[in-house]
Amino acid sequence: MSELRLDLATGEWVIIATERARRPHDFRRADAAGETPRETCPFCPGREAMTPGELYREPADGPWSVRVVPNKFPALSPGAEEAAPVSSDPVGMFLRRPGKGHHEVIVESPDHGARLATMSREAIAAVLGAYRARYRALRRTPNDARLIIIFKNCGEEAGTSLSHPHSQLVATPIVPLWIQSKHAVARRYWDMNRRCLYCDLLDAELAQKERVLFETEGFGVFHPFASRLPFETWIMPKRHTPSFGDVRDDELLELAQVLRATFRLLARGLGPFPYNYVVHSAPAGEEDRRFYLWHLEILPRLTMLAGFEMGSRIFINTAAPEATAAFLRSLAPEAALE
Amino acid sequence: MSELRLDLATGEWVIIATERARRPHDFRRADAAGETPRETCPFCPGREAMTPGELYREPADGPWSVRVVPNKFPALSPGAEEAAPVSSDPVGMFLRRPGKGHHEVIVESPDHGARLATMSREAIAAVLGAYRARYRALRRTPNDARLIIIFKNCGEEAGTSLSHPHSQLVATPIVPLWIQSKHAVARRYWDMNRRCLYCDLLDAELAQKERVLFETEGFGVFHPFASRLPFETWIMPKRHTPSFGDVRDDELLELAQVLRATFRLLARGLGPFPYNYVVHSAPAGEEDRRFYLWHLEILPRLTMLAGFEMGSRIFINTAAPEATAAFLRSLAPEAALE
Repeated sequence: MSELRLDLATGEWVIIATERARRPHDFRRADAAGETPRETCPFCPGREAMTPGELYREPADGPWSVRVVPNKFPALSPGAEEAAPVSSDPVGMFLRRPGKGHHEVIVESPDHGARLATMSREAIAAVLGAYRARYRALRRTPNDARLIIIFKNCGEEAGTSLSHPHSQLVATPIVPLWIQSKHAVARRYWDMNRRCLYCDLLDAELAQKERVLFETEGFGVFHPFASRLPFETWIMPKRHTPSFGDVRDDELLELAQVLRATFRLLARGLGPFPYNYVVHSAPAGEEDRRFYLWHLEILPRLTMLAGFEMGSRIFINTAAPEATAAFLRSLAPEAALE
Repeated sequence: MSELRLDLATGEWVIIATERARRPHDFRRADAAGETPRETCPFCPGREAMTPGELYREPADGPWSVRVVPNKFPALSPGAEEAAPVSSDPVGMFLRRPGKGHHEVIVESPDHGARLATMSREAIAAVLGAYRARYRALRRTPNDARLIIIFKNCGEEAGTSLSHPHSQLVATPIVPLWIQSKHAVARRYWDMNRRCLYCDLLDAELAQKERVLFETEGFGVFHPFASRLPFETWIMPKRHTPSFGDVRDDELLELAQVLRATFRLLARGLGPFPYNYVVHSAPAGEEDRRFYLWHLEILPRLTMLAGFEMGSRIFINTAAPEATAAFLRSLAPEAALE
């Protein structure tokens, strides 16, 4: 069972999850796990028994196109006891609590080699529909799902060794400090301006144009002004919607098209590239927040985070987002939407 | 010239430094730089002319054992104009300021293949002496050196492609939000307890023993309770000293021995491993802070930061620090000190 530990020096929680753990002497580099081969892939059809009990499947009958299962090595799990932090020392320096929460895997396709850039719009919409369904199911249990983060790791540099297309959902019983700080910033902006900061940021990017890749009726796609990473790309809805759980069906279909076009464009510019993406949403139970907007951040992992970033949390980006956006705009983004 | 950009959504500054930049179409993975070969290494003796003007050398005459030079591709530079942030849009969403600051390289040894685990105690003390000298020189210019971070990247996974032993110093004109938040936490602790949080953390770790690797008269070496990464190791002074600039000569020599022993021990457990280390200090001009303690954090880069970490800043650590510390204690830490 995992646990959450409080770093008293930063006020941040850390998850200690040793279930997938190598033993201490197995961290030697030679023992690093390679990529899981197709022959033993636990996410391929026919090996459904290798994954824990199914939480969602689409379609309900017959061969599945999307499946959601609990992560076999969960960072947080629903079985853990709900409990206040306890200290393991008399002075109270070492606070820990059980790792209660959820950690799920969304298997995006039965096809081991499927990629977002080449899947059909309907197939991608089915994946996004699974995100929304799980989001909606979990936000009803706000005690162990305060923050629901949906993310995808693709490529070894992005932290995965399973190449079968999949994304993950983690629901945490706490809202981490950084996210609290983001909400405080957005709330302050609302208080001052009576407008959503994120909507204003999107408007400003679309007006200034230099970092925009393309836009559709419902979405803007751009490299943000203060991009932390080369080719960092945000997809933002034009309709003010705090939570991904409240995206409409027609928006899901349009988002599928936009997501595919974005990955086509990035792949044209970069070739195959490792990346994470993250769907940010208002915390569960706070979906009515006027000051927050769900959005999807794509983080290509082309450079490594080094000591300066780890020690200061200031990112050094070696590419100007204006230059990379102009480069991608030169590669026919309109055609990518087709 | 680099620039600092404010991310309005997080309140965090990002450095856009394109001088070392590949052009947009050069981020394709095949073009990634490999390791610099010894034959063309700019840090080897005889190639001093390849680096910009020397800022420090030890000894002053004859062949050098340590050199400090400006980074050839600086993230921040002293030549930049000191200026208030300006907006590049009428609404004020896009705030930027010149990248004023310092970015230096500490060449740790004339020997291309030297390593901390095998260098002499005196040679390591000379490196630490260079850190302190540059720290002292720069803290006199607090306008463009509010925060001075000294760090080392070793290995490709840790963000370097230059294998000649070197560390870096970056002095920033701003104190980033995360560091401000750490100081606020420590100040609150001081206000409540009239004691230094970091001194208390060290005392608690040394008393509880389970995460301690070893201690000497002046230093404690341990895996912190809320370790973010497997084998994360902190070296902390027992004497309350807010700034690395105020370390005494006898402490430098002891620290050299402790640092070497720590790397010997980690290498015994892990084999060759990529890592960052970071020397944390109170901000320049605030060295009298009673609530802060300089310390050195070693961050082995054995696992990749994935989407969850990037999106929530909650770290998932797959190793319990108690287990890794017990493993390292079984490898004769006392002998490593010899």
